[in-house]
Amino acid sequence: MQTQSDEQEIRELVTSWMKETRKGNFDAVMGLMADDVVFLTPGQAPMIGKSAFAAAVKSQVDKEPPQFDGKSEIREIKVVGDWAFMWTKLTVMVTPSAGAAATPMTRAGHTLSILRKEKGKWLLARDANLLAPVK
Amino acid sequence: MQTQSDEQEIRELVTSWMKETRKGNFDAVMGLMADDVVFLTPGQAPMIGKSAFAAAVKSQVDKEPPQFDGKSEIREIKVVGDWAFMWTKLTVMVTPSAGAAATPMTRAGHTLSILRKEKGKWLLARDANLLAPVK
Repeated sequence: MQTQSDEQEIRELVTSWMKETRKGNFDAVMGLMADDVVFLTPGQAPMIGKSAFAAAVKSQVDKEPPQFDGKSEIREIKVVGDWAFMWTKLTVMVTPSAGAAATPMTRAGHTLSILRKEKGKWLLARDANLLAPVK
Repeated sequence: MQTQSDEQEIRELVTSWMKETRKGNFDAVMGLMADDVVFLTPGQAPMIGKSAFAAAVKSQVDKEPPQFDGKSEIREIKVVGDWAFMWTKLTVMVTPSAGAAATPMTRAGHTLSILRKEKGKWLLARDANLLAPVK
């Protein structure tokens, strides 16, 4: 098992996710997730499947494209064959488009994620996002 | 791999966790988690290690032992060797002790958990709890 290189590839997935989100390049972000991805967030129904993510992003961006920035600190990665889990400390700043009252919002907290290697490439498969607004 | 029986054992872990919590038997609950367990919740620092769980429970129970009840619906279990992940839909009702204003509070949402098999026994190893108050 090449867990060292697998770990490195998972770190690069996290870096790419943040970089492409910052650029608003959601097609690239979708290339980093499994087709059957599940996103879990507090107080919301699960978002199941890449197409649900696409629809949510489209609805958001069509209204007014916000700007994202963020910082992710990986606390643990554990690789088990073609599966892995990871938890991170994440901070996300969202600035609404200039047309709106452009007050940036910051959310911070942790994520717990399951990743799967498909055809040699690591993808996000399950994700629990525990971010809460920062006062 | 006996994933069928592993899955069954993980289901029994979930059932035992709920049963022992309902009875306020936190020593038994602690027997269901790994020593290095990590609990992640929204807006809180990570709770790391079984001893941190013990301290949190003791502080709560010493003040006024609340009554817990709940319902857990397992949505997915995936076993990979001696590791597994699971997500559930969970509802928890907490009733403060009779001395206090005994208004039950209900919290509902999802959990994403990592489990590990140690000496033939499945234990909770990492847990993201996304429950939010039900209005």
